[in-house]
Amino acid sequence: MGMVGGGAGSFIGPVHRMAAELDGDIELVAGAFSQDPARSRQAGETYHISPDRAYANYQEMMERESKRADAIDFVCIVTPNHVHLPIAVAALEHGFHVMSDKPATATLKEAETLEAVVRRTGLLYGLTFTYTGFPLVREARRMTRAGALGKIRKAVVQYSQGWLSSSLETTGQKQAVWRSDPGQAGQGGAIGDIGVHAFNLLEYVSGRQVAEICSDLSSVVAGRSLDDDCNVLLKLDNGAPGVLFVSQIAAGDRNDLQLHLYGEKGGLHWRQEDPHYLLVNWAGKPSETFHAGGDYVSAETRAEFRLPLGHAEGLIEAFANIYRDFAKSIHARFNDPSAQLSDLVPGIDAGVRSMTFVERAVTNSRKGWCAL
Amino acid sequence: MGMVGGGAGSFIGPVHRMAAELDGDIELVAGAFSQDPARSRQAGETYHISPDRAYANYQEMMERESKRADAIDFVCIVTPNHVHLPIAVAALEHGFHVMSDKPATATLKEAETLEAVVRRTGLLYGLTFTYTGFPLVREARRMTRAGALGKIRKAVVQYSQGWLSSSLETTGQKQAVWRSDPGQAGQGGAIGDIGVHAFNLLEYVSGRQVAEICSDLSSVVAGRSLDDDCNVLLKLDNGAPGVLFVSQIAAGDRNDLQLHLYGEKGGLHWRQEDPHYLLVNWAGKPSETFHAGGDYVSAETRAEFRLPLGHAEGLIEAFANIYRDFAKSIHARFNDPSAQLSDLVPGIDAGVRSMTFVERAVTNSRKGWCAL
Amino acid sequence: MGMVGGGAGSFIGPVHRMAAELDGDIELVAGAFSQDPARSRQAGETYHISPDRAYANYQEMMERESKRADAIDFVCIVTPNHVHLPIAVAALEHGFHVMSDKPATATLKEAETLEAVVRRTGLLYGLTFTYTGFPLVREARRMTRAGALGKIRKAVVQYSQGWLSSSLETTGQKQAVWRSDPGQAGQGGAIGDIGVHAFNLLEYVSGRQVAEICSDLSSVVAGRSLDDDCNVLLKLDNGAPGVLFVSQIAAGDRNDLQLHLYGEKGGLHWRQEDPHYLLVNWAGKPSETFHAGGDYVSAETRAEFRLPLGHAEGLIEAFANIYRDFAKSIHARFNDPSAQLSDLVPGIDAGVRSMTFVERAVTNSRKGWCAL
Amino acid sequence: MGMVGGGAGSFIGPVHRMAAELDGDIELVAGAFSQDPARSRQAGETYHISPDRAYANYQEMMERESKRADAIDFVCIVTPNHVHLPIAVAALEHGFHVMSDKPATATLKEAETLEAVVRRTGLLYGLTFTYTGFPLVREARRMTRAGALGKIRKAVVQYSQGWLSSSLETTGQKQAVWRSDPGQAGQGGAIGDIGVHAFNLLEYVSGRQVAEICSDLSSVVAGRSLDDDCNVLLKLDNGAPGVLFVSQIAAGDRNDLQLHLYGEKGGLHWRQEDPHYLLVNWAGKPSETFHAGGDYVSAETRAEFRLPLGHAEGLIEAFANIYRDFAKSIHARFNDPSAQLSDLVPGIDAGVRSMTFVERAVTNSRKGWCAL
Repeated sequence: MGMVGGGAGSFIGPVHRMAAELDGDIELVAGAFSQDPARSRQAGETYHISPDRAYANYQEMMERESKRADAIDFVCIVTPNHVHLPIAVAALEHGFHVMSDKPATATLKEAETLEAVVRRTGLLYGLTFTYTGFPLVREARRMTRAGALGKIRKAVVQYSQGWLSSSLETTGQKQAVWRSDPGQAGQGGAIGDIGVHAFNLLEYVSGRQVAEICSDLSSVVAGRSLDDDCNVLLKLDNGAPGVLFVSQIAAGDRNDLQLHLYGEKGGLHWRQEDPHYLLVNWAGKPSETFHAGGDYVSAETRAEFRLPLGHAEGLIEAFANIYRDFAKSIHARFNDPSAQLSDLVPGIDAGVRSMTFVERAVTNSRKGWCAL
Repeated sequence: MGMVGGGAGSFIGPVHRMAAELDGDIELVAGAFSQDPARSRQAGETYHISPDRAYANYQEMMERESKRADAIDFVCIVTPNHVHLPIAVAALEHGFHVMSDKPATATLKEAETLEAVVRRTGLLYGLTFTYTGFPLVREARRMTRAGALGKIRKAVVQYSQGWLSSSLETTGQKQAVWRSDPGQAGQGGAIGDIGVHAFNLLEYVSGRQVAEICSDLSSVVAGRSLDDDCNVLLKLDNGAPGVLFVSQIAAGDRNDLQLHLYGEKGGLHWRQEDPHYLLVNWAGKPSETFHAGGDYVSAETRAEFRLPLGHAEGLIEAFANIYRDFAKSIHARFNDPSAQLSDLVPGIDAGVRSMTFVERAVTNSRKGWCAL
Repeated sequence: MGMVGGGAGSFIGPVHRMAAELDGDIELVAGAFSQDPARSRQAGETYHISPDRAYANYQEMMERESKRADAIDFVCIVTPNHVHLPIAVAALEHGFHVMSDKPATATLKEAETLEAVVRRTGLLYGLTFTYTGFPLVREARRMTRAGALGKIRKAVVQYSQGWLSSSLETTGQKQAVWRSDPGQAGQGGAIGDIGVHAFNLLEYVSGRQVAEICSDLSSVVAGRSLDDDCNVLLKLDNGAPGVLFVSQIAAGDRNDLQLHLYGEKGGLHWRQEDPHYLLVNWAGKPSETFHAGGDYVSAETRAEFRLPLGHAEGLIEAFANIYRDFAKSIHARFNDPSAQLSDLVPGIDAGVRSMTFVERAVTNSRKGWCAL
Repeated sequence: MGMVGGGAGSFIGPVHRMAAELDGDIELVAGAFSQDPARSRQAGETYHISPDRAYANYQEMMERESKRADAIDFVCIVTPNHVHLPIAVAALEHGFHVMSDKPATATLKEAETLEAVVRRTGLLYGLTFTYTGFPLVREARRMTRAGALGKIRKAVVQYSQGWLSSSLETTGQKQAVWRSDPGQAGQGGAIGDIGVHAFNLLEYVSGRQVAEICSDLSSVVAGRSLDDDCNVLLKLDNGAPGVLFVSQIAAGDRNDLQLHLYGEKGGLHWRQEDPHYLLVNWAGKPSETFHAGGDYVSAETRAEFRLPLGHAEGLIEAFANIYRDFAKSIHARFNDPSAQLSDLVPGIDAGVRSMTFVERAVTNSRKGWCAL
């Protein structure tokens, strides 16, 4: 694997590295970790990369790697959003599969451009909507798709953080700076950064698409040009009503992603901060809690949990599940050129869907209100 | 106290009786418990009322009680919504204070009519928005109004039940029948039954008014004419965004009323199913949990909790707090004709506000959506 | 009902009054609320008792009430422990049934004396081991006795409070003063005050008796003569091992009574601070949570919960269940002189058992240790 | 790093590998993964080890590695308990530092033998009492040792599992077989397998030693020769009372390790199944919850958490913290021959302490009981 981005100060780069390497089947061997060649080399040392494979920029990496006998198999993109597109395109055009951090691109238009390249090259493109890697999220998906809840009738999904409740970007904090800069983040603030996770999680688990929305985006902290709070009413494609709300100014909240999905027979509830529990409240029966590692979950879900029942796994292990499935798809492609991306790994479709959501929510905010 | 409604099969009548009498200062001594005189007398026996004060109907109760030397001081109304107005008006016109179950009336127009009578007679009118009686709800209100959270920036309030996720009203179940009949329930289904609780709780604790809304009401269960699911985007009068969502088809949910209120300094979180905890997540400090009965809550809140720290109280005790404050207001009025209703007890203003909310949400549902 | 004790400053007297009267079938009509006749009369006013039935002392109450046509049916005892015996005996000898606060008496010897009087008079004697009144404690008892867990194999019961972690008794605080005075509390400090609750709860739910113990009692706070912390290893009469630990110096703990009971098929878990949940972790199946008010609990348990699913009840309602069952037993006795105390209400047997536990634990503390 | 044990069917071997390599500073390069040379080679392939470094047995590994220029720096031992001693001794005698899975050895006598070798060679010896690696366990240790709770007055520690509640060892399940065989597990069953974790956690966090115990060990499941349930009363070296109870027959329990430590000012509470919360109940103040990643925990604790606030980490990351500190100690030793093992890593002292506990508890079980 070769990485683009992830140099000093990056939070997500090292997480990708740990996750990719966790199961021992993927190794980070090349990278263009920074726009600054010296910093890229320095990061290469930190990552224990051979010096000749710590490249000055991504273009160089693509060219030189594509000529090596022991070339990387795929590129992992962990930069700010605005350069996702050119990097992904360059990788694909040089014949590399791509694993990209979310969102796919900075705008819907870019996502559509990328989609065309993915389709044309036929290469594998995965998106790390990380939360889809949690074993119990996948168990929820399996249960829901198998009809355990009956017809889906209501959905509530929230993603609530408080870390941008003060004007952190004015202090120079790197994570805050690029996320609040339309030039780097794209159209969406909170909606692009975490709203897409919430949106994707809903579609991933429910097996339904969001058909219509009505949105309200706000920039609550003074001086901020992108949204930092975003509330959406929605209808699923079967007519079921729903609510999606995300915030980065919910002071005191940590990383409160929750999914609540109701069918005719009961409702399932998952909260990212306690990811090893899946609660199902049944109509007319005691509530059930499913635990990752329990011998009553599906065999697939058990295999997605590395520890015995009752031990905790977290984000890195969830991330690693996505990498593991991506690696399996690459291995399958080695043997069978028609092998496709595992349907457990969000791909370009999920990328386009989520960017459509961002674009529509941003451009249609605050229509149809009445005074009280 | 004299009760109207609350006969056989009533859930809320006995709860009002228990709550009113809990502290030993109010006694149920008269009632018109049913439209059917025989059933009213029978209920009177169950309540241990003197037979001559179990009246055939509320008109008789008002007339005869108003002539007794030991007349009741106030009337408690626990009927279906559509007769709240005439009963309240009759009570007020006969000189009795009124404690009414929510919602105030069946429609906004009725609420405005009632408001005029309350103002003209100058009598005390209280509304049992029950959840406002929980000690920690009041502590939340005190903290918020004292500025503990700083400026309010976001609100999320939910009220989610699953008991109407099947077509219960077609089985003859009394509680379901009248609530799903527009003739008895009024304009709102779930929004009128529990949405008003959520709305009131938000305004009660935050000290802010909801200024604007954008709503989506659905009748999810086939054959139902009133809404059973209702989702609302909102703006507080200081511009803060918010979300309110209520449902009675959230299968498996019990009585999941939650308030999440975010200010500049942190967010407070209260859930009705675990009412003895108040969580405050602070920005930059450990989270704090306040317990009813703790010696660190305000003296007022401590007095609203009857047990030592760590013991559980519930709905009846919360209800009793509202009755206690209402009784105090009546006592104050004995001594001082200008004494007003305690501001801890929701009154006609809260009644009109909540009916305005219902009317606007119902008539403006589903405006301003876009496809995805 | 006539009360002995419960005057100004009493915590438990008013709770008994509220609980006894909650369902409208019992009324407090007489009392000897204090050793001081003037204070007794004063308390009578607070309780809205007729002045001629607020007696100067319990002897006077027994004599005068036993001559009234409308005499009380039973006496409720809410004094410090050291006078439980003479009051209970006096009541029984005057023909009154007795409902006593726990523990039955101050010592095991007294409990045996009382047992003889109860047997001889044949009157009903109930003990308010309050926690046995919670609907889900009774559901746990029903499930366990019906064999849902299989053979019981292990028990853990804890009761942990922090309110005596400082030397509160030296400040004159009434509750602390008598509880730490051997002359009023008896042999046991924490073990007599709350240990007996834990002990009783274990036997009540499991349907098993504790056969053997090994104890360690400590007076952790300097200057205290009775134990304030007590830890016990135990064996049930079927050989199952267990642990019981109680403390009143567990700083910060509120009223943390917990029961964990393990059988061959799973373990059930109940915590007093969240009394409306009963968790059962099954071997090989998802965990189940039972909610008071759910339509999947037994009909008896449903009847012990007054509210719809998802609303909170607490200690007063649990207490009221015990009074309700006690009242039913008295009613049954009216019709049938051989009617016995409901087996849901702890009686003199439970009283003797728990005092046996206290006596053995106190006199055998700290035997059989080894250094490490 | 070279591993001994960890071949096919091992649970803990792969966990050590993932944990050791997580931060990118340690690499598994050699191993003797099985007693069977063929299986050892096979495991080496799975671990992506160079074939010439997948040795036939540990003796061969020690000899050959000690002659390589690029030799391993330390040996990681993940075998059943009975061979911990010879492997550790062989490693130390060949000049390798040692990281051993717990318990240190199969018996106290062996632990003392090992202690002598560690002292004589002066090499670094670490024990993976894994739970000591959780950031909030370390925060608890830091708070406690800094006096935040005041003098320690009571301790409760439990470790409760249900996976051996049936006779799993008779089915051939590898983990159950060796743990229930005295020849492989040593003196202790549950007490040796998980009791030592509980014991170590108590001493690690409290900074106190257990001075005296009184124990009750049982073999609850028929036909089992080692204990599967173990309950202990204890006194800390400052006289504070405590309770430690562990079980592997607590049906339905997953991996319920909990520490409750009470001081004069409050009590701290940590549960392994929700490791990212540390609850402190203060006397007279709201309870506080500390979150790993919060900017209010100590700088050391923050550095032990790899993710932003609100994301989950688990056992592998905790394990990796121990490896990271061990690696730091080795690095320090490179520069300074007198550098000692980080005091955050449990060493041979902790090993001897915990084996002393096992030995005393086993040989003194069931002394000093009385009948009830």
